[in-house]
Amino acid sequence: MLNVTVWNENRHEQKNPKVREVYPEGIHGAIASFLKEEAFQVKTATLDEHEHGLSDEVLNGTDVLIWWGHMAHEDVRDEIVEKVKQRVLDGMGLIVLHSGHFSKIFKTLMGTSCDLKWREADEKERIWIVDPSHPIVEGLGEYIELEKEEMYGEHFDIPAPDQLVTVSWFEGGEVFRSGCTYTRGHGKIFYFRPGHETYPTYFHKDVQRIIMNAVKWAKPAERKKMVYGNALALEEIKGSH
Amino acid sequence: MLNVTVWNENRHEQKNPKVREVYPEGIHGAIASFLKEEAFQVKTATLDEHEHGLSDEVLNGTDVLIWWGHMAHEDVRDEIVEKVKQRVLDGMGLIVLHSGHFSKIFKTLMGTSCDLKWREADEKERIWIVDPSHPIVEGLGEYIELEKEEMYGEHFDIPAPDQLVTVSWFEGGEVFRSGCTYTRGHGKIFYFRPGHETYPTYFHKDVQRIIMNAVKWAKPAERKKMVYGNALALEEIKGSH
Amino acid sequence: MLNVTVWNENRHEQKNPKVREVYPEGIHGAIASFLKEEAFQVKTATLDEHEHGLSDEVLNGTDVLIWWGHMAHEDVRDEIVEKVKQRVLDGMGLIVLHSGHFSKIFKTLMGTSCDLKWREADEKERIWIVDPSHPIVEGLGEYIELEKEEMYGEHFDIPAPDQLVTVSWFEGGEVFRSGCTYTRGHGKIFYFRPGHETYPTYFHKDVQRIIMNAVKWAKPAERKKMVYGNALALEEIKGSH
Amino acid sequence: MLNVTVWNENRHEQKNPKVREVYPEGIHGAIASFLKEEAFQVKTATLDEHEHGLSDEVLNGTDVLIWWGHMAHEDVRDEIVEKVKQRVLDGMGLIVLHSGHFSKIFKTLMGTSCDLKWREADEKERIWIVDPSHPIVEGLGEYIELEKEEMYGEHFDIPAPDQLVTVSWFEGGEVFRSGCTYTRGHGKIFYFRPGHETYPTYFHKDVQRIIMNAVKWAKPAERKKMVYGNALALEEIKGSH
Repeated sequence: MLNVTVWNENRHEQKNPKVREVYPEGIHGAIASFLKEEAFQVKTATLDEHEHGLSDEVLNGTDVLIWWGHMAHEDVRDEIVEKVKQRVLDGMGLIVLHSGHFSKIFKTLMGTSCDLKWREADEKERIWIVDPSHPIVEGLGEYIELEKEEMYGEHFDIPAPDQLVTVSWFEGGEVFRSGCTYTRGHGKIFYFRPGHETYPTYFHKDVQRIIMNAVKWAKPAERKKMVYGNALALEEIKGSH
Repeated sequence: MLNVTVWNENRHEQKNPKVREVYPEGIHGAIASFLKEEAFQVKTATLDEHEHGLSDEVLNGTDVLIWWGHMAHEDVRDEIVEKVKQRVLDGMGLIVLHSGHFSKIFKTLMGTSCDLKWREADEKERIWIVDPSHPIVEGLGEYIELEKEEMYGEHFDIPAPDQLVTVSWFEGGEVFRSGCTYTRGHGKIFYFRPGHETYPTYFHKDVQRIIMNAVKWAKPAERKKMVYGNALALEEIKGSH
Repeated sequence: MLNVTVWNENRHEQKNPKVREVYPEGIHGAIASFLKEEAFQVKTATLDEHEHGLSDEVLNGTDVLIWWGHMAHEDVRDEIVEKVKQRVLDGMGLIVLHSGHFSKIFKTLMGTSCDLKWREADEKERIWIVDPSHPIVEGLGEYIELEKEEMYGEHFDIPAPDQLVTVSWFEGGEVFRSGCTYTRGHGKIFYFRPGHETYPTYFHKDVQRIIMNAVKWAKPAERKKMVYGNALALEEIKGSH
Repeated sequence: MLNVTVWNENRHEQKNPKVREVYPEGIHGAIASFLKEEAFQVKTATLDEHEHGLSDEVLNGTDVLIWWGHMAHEDVRDEIVEKVKQRVLDGMGLIVLHSGHFSKIFKTLMGTSCDLKWREADEKERIWIVDPSHPIVEGLGEYIELEKEEMYGEHFDIPAPDQLVTVSWFEGGEVFRSGCTYTRGHGKIFYFRPGHETYPTYFHKDVQRIIMNAVKWAKPAERKKMVYGNALALEEIKGSH
């Protein structure tokens, strides 16, 4: 059974009654809730817990980590980010949601600024599927329509995705590469755009489906560790020829 | 100096006065005209010429071939398509425009149906640049806006592009991967979406700039031919160790 | 349960006693045998059967098709190739083995010559894993060593793979991109190099593991069909805004 | 005219007479020398200069930066690395050579460990060209043979390259993705493997050709800056519709 940890900054929920109304159990609670129905083993962790809720024990027991953050990226301690990065390179899956594009963990894995355009205007978004063969969009139609969302627009300063799965259309005239996969080390990474804190996006069945699919896709492959460093001497190799 | 051949079906121009009005010298004439200003050596060729204007002599003297077709894809003879394909695999660049997505040459090089959604509705298109480092979009701003164009929408049934350079937004709610590069054999291929025959798209300075950049990008690399087939015997190789 | 059809040309087995000795039940029999242990539903089909064993009924009931061919590529009828291609574009997985690189079905899906270098010299091959996160190499070590194989060497005239999973080293001095994934339409394709008919390669546990993993990876995603062609009129869309 | 800065750690040359013998003017001197013949404007910079020779003035005047480092990666100051990274994201080309795979600048742009296998054994390397259409390998044959080099072997822990240009074969049984391109922000990056300090690799004409080609390929595209952050309000956009 897959072990999923849903990490949420959980600050908007404390400060903004509107967000609390949309997500009474927090964004992490909403995400954990539908993941549990899929028979994953689900934990949550938040910024203000000890070690941000991401102790070695939690991280080592996590197959796939989901990350939502926005207003407090700078409060995430560098040594925790470093540990999460190591776990990803060792094989833990990572799903970065929405404003997590600016999180330390995403930026350090991408190597770019991860900057973008944005606008808060209750705007319609259509998430078009451009790679229908991808397991992350299994079971979906041609697009997902969200009546109101924050706009994110190109240029999105990311490395070219290994696989571009969805592209979003916005009412105001922008497009956005909204579903992108990457591999870093042994770890699989999926960035998925939607989920502004004031909209009930994570209650949308198709959004949930994509996140559930992504968890399955991102699970670590079972394998021996690669061997790095000084290799066998050529003589030994030649001897074994 | 680069030798460019602009191939056009040239049928709409004969049958539709509206198209003739927009492109009095044909779509090929309009494209050839701005390419000449860039100091390329430019020829044109059309469907109803002998061998569709693509004799061995013409093809062998062409560094980059530009292709516009729409209503008469089936009239292009298979043996000419096969010769064009061979030239691409041998290194000739190929720029496929707009409705050329359904041409025999593009489909045989892609291996997919190349199907898509379309709508003729005088719709606004914004061509967003998603890879600003690419030489094909050198000198441009963030996007190109075309007041009226035909809509092409996803899913566009193509192989994942080697490089996705632009993504188009349409007023009606669709997105489209509108600038895509591929390599097939030694040949570089660029598909570029805009250019419906009833709009003056190929007079737009930024559209012209992209096509000019693409010609430079697609030019053949000078190199020896690769060697295929039965390789040197291992003994010969071991002897030379 | 996944339905797998193993297609084999099955000519070497008839003509060459050495091959018959290595594969008494044919290459298709050997592959079907280990796939059955993995609880797949496995059929075989061969060139000399009616419709090459690939009737509509068989193809429509196949989730993943495995293809081995070599000396008789030209005997495969074009209309069967076309039907297989359609099924791949509609979602059927395709695993092309070894000399299948020159099969009509692989060449038409790739759009290139698929040519390469080769040498028959009882040569050592090491298949190095370059993407350890990929599900196709789950459970394996750093490389697979085959004591004796035919050499295939670069340049391999294929489109750049969507994912490069393995690279082979050969004793005589060549390298080869030996494990390559592609998507065409809704179908997932995996090319895997080893398997010359005179060596017992398909009895090697790690080779079997890769083929079994590839079958799981290539299985069709369940989804609605994409809609192509004339889209809703803009007025209808605007009305629904 | 292109402005190229060749950065070298320049420590082996000080400490190891053997290296000094091979590269009497330093590795940077050898590289600068053949680049000058190509009519580039060439500067050199080394670790022990003020600001490692990479002042704002130097960096801002550099179109393409070449990087060789090995034993003193940790001595490169983080704030200089950060400035180089910003310049790459803003469009400066970066060519990372050999042991530069472990440099701070490469690791921070890649997001992975960049680890690999190595062996010093006077081993033969063959650098096979797998993308013959790429401008970086223009003018070359099928492979480059280096009689003696250090071995680097897979698994090389890098993100999947945007373009894989060359793959190396080593006598001892390893392969290596030895020529890899990436884009980060507006900057083009090329990693090229050969160049151990005790071998005269940078005097090899074909190695020089690849580095010269790479400089041209990596030159910044002229363009306006992308705009990030809060976009125009939807009302303004709607007003302009």
